Amino acid sequence: MKVVLVLGAGLSSSSLFRYLISHLKENDWRLIIANASIDVLSNKYGSIADVELLKLDANNKAQRQQLIARSNLVISMLPASFHVEVARDCIDAGIDLITPSYVSQEMKALHDEAIQKGVTIMNETGVDPGIDHMSAVKIMEEIDEKGGKLTSFKSFCGGLIAPESDDNLWHYKFTWNPRNVVLAGQGGVAAFRQNKELKYIPYNQLFKRTERFEIEGYGSFDGYANRDSLKYLELYNMASVETMYRGTLRRPDFCQAWDVLVELGLTEDGYILENSQSLTPRQLLNAFLPYHPKDSVETKLQRFLREDRLHLYPLFEEIGLFDNTVPIHSEDASPARFLQALLEKSWVLKPEDKDMLVMLHEFGYLLEGRKYRLLSSMVSVGEDRHYTAMANTVGLPMAIIAKHMLKGYRNPGVHLPIDRELYIPVLEELKTWGVEFIDNLTEIK
Amino acid sequence: MKVVLVLGAGLSSSSLFRYLISHLKENDWRLIIANASIDVLSNKYGSIADVELLKLDANNKAQRQQLIARSNLVISMLPASFHVEVARDCIDAGIDLITPSYVSQEMKALHDEAIQKGVTIMNETGVDPGIDHMSAVKIMEEIDEKGGKLTSFKSFCGGLIAPESDDNLWHYKFTWNPRNVVLAGQGGVAAFRQNKELKYIPYNQLFKRTERFEIEGYGSFDGYANRDSLKYLELYNMASVETMYRGTLRRPDFCQAWDVLVELGLTEDGYILENSQSLTPRQLLNAFLPYHPKDSVETKLQRFLREDRLHLYPLFEEIGLFDNTVPIHSEDASPARFLQALLEKSWVLKPEDKDMLVMLHEFGYLLEGRKYRLLSSMVSVGEDRHYTAMANTVGLPMAIIAKHMLKGYRNPGVHLPIDRELYIPVLEELKTWGVEFIDNLTEIK
Repeated sequence: MKVVLVLGAGLSSSSLFRYLISHLKENDWRLIIANASIDVLSNKYGSIADVELLKLDANNKAQRQQLIARSNLVISMLPASFHVEVARDCIDAGIDLITPSYVSQEMKALHDEAIQKGVTIMNETGVDPGIDHMSAVKIMEEIDEKGGKLTSFKSFCGGLIAPESDDNLWHYKFTWNPRNVVLAGQGGVAAFRQNKELKYIPYNQLFKRTERFEIEGYGSFDGYANRDSLKYLELYNMASVETMYRGTLRRPDFCQAWDVLVELGLTEDGYILENSQSLTPRQLLNAFLPYHPKDSVETKLQRFLREDRLHLYPLFEEIGLFDNTVPIHSEDASPARFLQALLEKSWVLKPEDKDMLVMLHEFGYLLEGRKYRLLSSMVSVGEDRHYTAMANTVGLPMAIIAKHMLKGYRNPGVHLPIDRELYIPVLEELKTWGVEFIDNLTEIK
Repeated sequence: MKVVLVLGAGLSSSSLFRYLISHLKENDWRLIIANASIDVLSNKYGSIADVELLKLDANNKAQRQQLIARSNLVISMLPASFHVEVARDCIDAGIDLITPSYVSQEMKALHDEAIQKGVTIMNETGVDPGIDHMSAVKIMEEIDEKGGKLTSFKSFCGGLIAPESDDNLWHYKFTWNPRNVVLAGQGGVAAFRQNKELKYIPYNQLFKRTERFEIEGYGSFDGYANRDSLKYLELYNMASVETMYRGTLRRPDFCQAWDVLVELGLTEDGYILENSQSLTPRQLLNAFLPYHPKDSVETKLQRFLREDRLHLYPLFEEIGLFDNTVPIHSEDASPARFLQALLEKSWVLKPEDKDMLVMLHEFGYLLEGRKYRLLSSMVSVGEDRHYTAMANTVGLPMAIIAKHMLKGYRNPGVHLPIDRELYIPVLEELKTWGVEFIDNLTEIK
């Protein structure tokens, strides 16, 4: 009997647990879920055979080590800051580890030690990062095998709302950490390569310089640039590619209206607003609009929008930005915190709402003297509020990778799931869950 | 014989030393100048009677204390970070201190102790802060005495280039720390009060929301907002004033063109450019402009400027932004560092150039049922490269304040020079040096 230990049980764990639990018997596995609180978990998983629930103090090294010693595989769903500590524990114990998070410099530094101990540490195993790597590398290798030459790679991902639940003008609801949405694009410049040229986009231009894509059956999406696309040149071993660009997808109008919030200064997080706890949204907005002796806040925002953005005006009405009746009661809030509190009242998932995860790769390549554009897109709609598209696309690849590792897949060192032997069966099995890429190839004349 | 100790001898000390030295004999003073290096000082002041030059290690507490013990008054021209340490030494020794710098929280905390020891610590004694306080408070008190009610106060200052030396399209040369000029407005939001409303201007709007002023004989100036105007409500004891705004002056076109650099992202300081040491200005500019398959960098910048800002194009040519022949050789540079290196080649003071310090207050007040606008402006042109307007307007008020303190002016505690008994004679004597405010009163109908 093999023991899988999952440390932490956050929002996107539901699909991971469902998969593991439904595969316990046939594989003769036992599942230990160790989390800070097990009240909710007990209701859901308390009576399932071969599932053990434990209270975890993630900072308690002795407890972590004791649990890891009882396991055959560890999956860390803890906050990313814990992963290096857990990886050290796993290396010491000679136990393999899976995490959904980006490989930090500290994690990378454990590579040689992991090899020496024969321990596989598999990171970036969720959706983004995760499915993006697997699906992109698969097509890159296929192009290479055909003798093609990849010249351009653009890749986008977005956690959005399903068309049937899309009932606001922003076409957006929070399906993920709201603070990260509000601060998106801050804290680092967007750097990428376009037709061999190094390009930077500063924050004040980020939501202006978007690119529009169409996905059949799902309509239009706008992509804005992620922070650092350049590191993927090394990651995907494609230093000579002419274009390398990664971004985030939103529905049309979102980026254009968000850009207005950026221009206004409402996404800034570096200082505390005066009397933020008693401010109404209207007062906040007015504080960021140029003074006018007579004009209303509405008129002042219309002037700020200018003629070419006036069609966005209803989006600001919808989020209650002109509301003067109730303060947001956000104490010692930055503009970003205040805006987040406002949006959290507006962009709420209703019980019946479904989310949608969209991924889109655009490959440009040369083959036998011809130029091709391959658009490969995946749209995953959530089942319900519990098994969301986000939970499925994060949890399922992790669970499937776990299965393969428990069944014998090994690759000692600190890795990403870009080994063909692993990603081929994972992508295949994801299809059975509706997580499937549709390719669209056109020749560029 | 009274001893004046000056700690540090930076750029703006020349006018301070000239004044003190020319007043040594009549007042029976002795001047000690203690600086990290005394080579340059020796050439200039080495043979003057009653001037002693000493090598100072500002971090050496024992040496500082020993020097202070020999003095009757200390003037600290050291970097602002040393002032609190020096103030503690002075309080311990019972010796008065003058600094040109803003009162920090740590400095403020010494107030009670300074009172107990009977020590006067006079800060913000240069031009801005310094002359701004003295000249503003003088007029505020005059309005008050007449029975008027101050409703609005706007105040601006700018270190610029004299009209006879103004030979570039930006009407600007570096007369002060270039890095501070490039980073101006970053690291904090501009907050002020306008007609009773609290207003914020984020960095991306700062150089767009300027206000134009005319000064007779000197033409037009644009003011952009300084970081925190709200603290002056308390400082000037005018919590109920309807408008409180402080800003920085530049010549027309400067702010509009600088705003383009901000939009491009060229003033950002938070990350290192790839291969910054081998980049040419043209390559840098191109990295921040949207890609186009055929257009030149020139055409791309013109498109970025749009029709309404196209007249600014020659300003970017003038600073060499399209230059592709020579890299700037700025290693591990942020965009801001790179831009600074470029501008330092272009905005150089020539040996015969004169600088110009401009200060402008706009008071709005009610008197006997009438509304008035009082514009009070001061323009000081430098004598030469040595006795610049900057050195004069920083050093002269400090020196004159020193004279009054040596002659008996005392006000124990941590203070600003806003005591009538002090600022009246200081402003009077500054007039004899050409540092004089011209008032222009109009009634608002």
